[in-house]
Amino acid sequence: MESLDIYFQQVASGKEPCNLYDPITYILSQGGKRVRPNLVLLSAEMFGEKAENAFHVATAFEMLHNFTLIHDDIMDDAPIRRGKPTVYKRWNGNIAILAGDALAIMAMQELLKVPTDDATIIKISELFAQTSLEICEGQQYDLDFESEENVSIEDYIKMIRLKTAVMLAGCLKSSAILAHASEQDQQAIYDFGINIGLAFQLQDDILDLYSDVEVFGKARGGDIRENKKTYLYLVALRDADEDQRKQLLHYFSSTHFDFDEKLNAVKAVYESLSVKEKTEFVINQYVDKAKELLKSISVEEEKKQLLYQLADRLAHREK
Amino acid sequence: MESLDIYFQQVASGKEPCNLYDPITYILSQGGKRVRPNLVLLSAEMFGEKAENAFHVATAFEMLHNFTLIHDDIMDDAPIRRGKPTVYKRWNGNIAILAGDALAIMAMQELLKVPTDDATIIKISELFAQTSLEICEGQQYDLDFESEENVSIEDYIKMIRLKTAVMLAGCLKSSAILAHASEQDQQAIYDFGINIGLAFQLQDDILDLYSDVEVFGKARGGDIRENKKTYLYLVALRDADEDQRKQLLHYFSSTHFDFDEKLNAVKAVYESLSVKEKTEFVINQYVDKAKELLKSISVEEEKKQLLYQLADRLAHREK
Repeated sequence: MESLDIYFQQVASGKEPCNLYDPITYILSQGGKRVRPNLVLLSAEMFGEKAENAFHVATAFEMLHNFTLIHDDIMDDAPIRRGKPTVYKRWNGNIAILAGDALAIMAMQELLKVPTDDATIIKISELFAQTSLEICEGQQYDLDFESEENVSIEDYIKMIRLKTAVMLAGCLKSSAILAHASEQDQQAIYDFGINIGLAFQLQDDILDLYSDVEVFGKARGGDIRENKKTYLYLVALRDADEDQRKQLLHYFSSTHFDFDEKLNAVKAVYESLSVKEKTEFVINQYVDKAKELLKSISVEEEKKQLLYQLADRLAHREK
Repeated sequence: MESLDIYFQQVASGKEPCNLYDPITYILSQGGKRVRPNLVLLSAEMFGEKAENAFHVATAFEMLHNFTLIHDDIMDDAPIRRGKPTVYKRWNGNIAILAGDALAIMAMQELLKVPTDDATIIKISELFAQTSLEICEGQQYDLDFESEENVSIEDYIKMIRLKTAVMLAGCLKSSAILAHASEQDQQAIYDFGINIGLAFQLQDDILDLYSDVEVFGKARGGDIRENKKTYLYLVALRDADEDQRKQLLHYFSSTHFDFDEKLNAVKAVYESLSVKEKTEFVINQYVDKAKELLKSISVEEEKKQLLYQLADRLAHREK
């Protein structure tokens, strides 16, 4: 990932106008987990493609991811990201809109640099555009859910599939396309990505409430504070008796409660309904399904080891 | 343009989530002058390419244009566009950000549908992405200029080149690429587009102040009301004596003046300095340069007639 950091430090550096390009350098240089480029490179290696050939696929997806972060932070009015002020707060809303736009376009430009034949570039670009559009759909569902009374667990899974999972799936499948893998293997690695993506997001919902604050780097219970309809909340609501249901709806109707009181009350309901354990059960189902899909791919098992490990790590991560 | 309207009515229609796609249908169905698709089709025909083959190039550029309008209207806090509430006002800022993002991605997808060989699609996509990025640069310069004291005429031309002219040039050149025109002809039609684009924007600055309100559809003097540093203003500032300069700086320092008093005072300065005539002179220079470039293209003169006419019409339009 070192060459990635170097690339991101220079790709927008010194370009003008600086109010457009400095925010791009700022966000790309912050690091983060680099989950997406990592997936691109792991998939390329598994399918026998040189990692260096997939480099600009990796940069494209990481830039796409950061574009969504810049715009999401405006929409969520988020002050901090990766321990630093968001672009929106460090500069302003207008600059964040435009820097996001420019970064999305630069991401597309990365794909045009991939050293392969034209037909393959077009196939990857089609997948990339479709993925980008689905991410917008997911973000819109997420915004819609804030004011919707009856969000079902099914709705929620559909939303996180679009908002989070399709990008991971897109990373993995792009490398499969680049390596000219069979259609069947392309689909299998895509579905593997969907399943680990869903597991990843559900784990995120758990970590928000049950993480080690030191390790996770965020205060606990932010989702409850903001009345976010997470998987935990929706499972609790599904399984609650009338009294518990009333309590949940009461505490999730406003952000003006004493936070400790609210957190303890909601947590008590979650615990009496074993919400964490139920969510972990579903996470494990997704991880198992992912491993099954990985197993079906026509590549020697030993080449898949890093992706098996990644599936376990993503789902059981503590940050 | 009829098939364009039909296409735009259905391209996002009925897709979900509706808060993402309805604003897209809304803006695409409003019509507008359709300058950009018109340029795509005129250039295709001139270079001997069937208009139907350029259809998705035309839709791509019109969608790109409308994406910039959605986001620009947020940044400018603009309530009305084409006589209707902007997406930003009709829905809200978050929805306008996301609908713009989605529309930009859909524009890229249009290019992947162009019925031509892969190498040509990639060449057009490269130009399209570069053009899109330059438009972001132009918009950022425009935002920067609002708070900048010393904007030169050169800075202003650079800004409108990026913000307005490169898109017209990109439309024209894309069709030249599609028709496999020579590199030289591709460059000539691109530069033709730059010159008519600059003329177009300067004419816009004139129309804001000197239009027939009935025809132009906007109240006169909006740029002066908002202290916009237009070409007229910058020419006036360049040619003003000390007293006139003081007056201009005084009136452009606040939006709290009595509007009629301000409008009359600024207009009087403009008139005594023949600012309108000087701007028209420069417009004519750009139009002449454009025609010269058109003349240099290795296509029979009779096939160029519509573009000659368009150059005259754009520059001398009354709306």
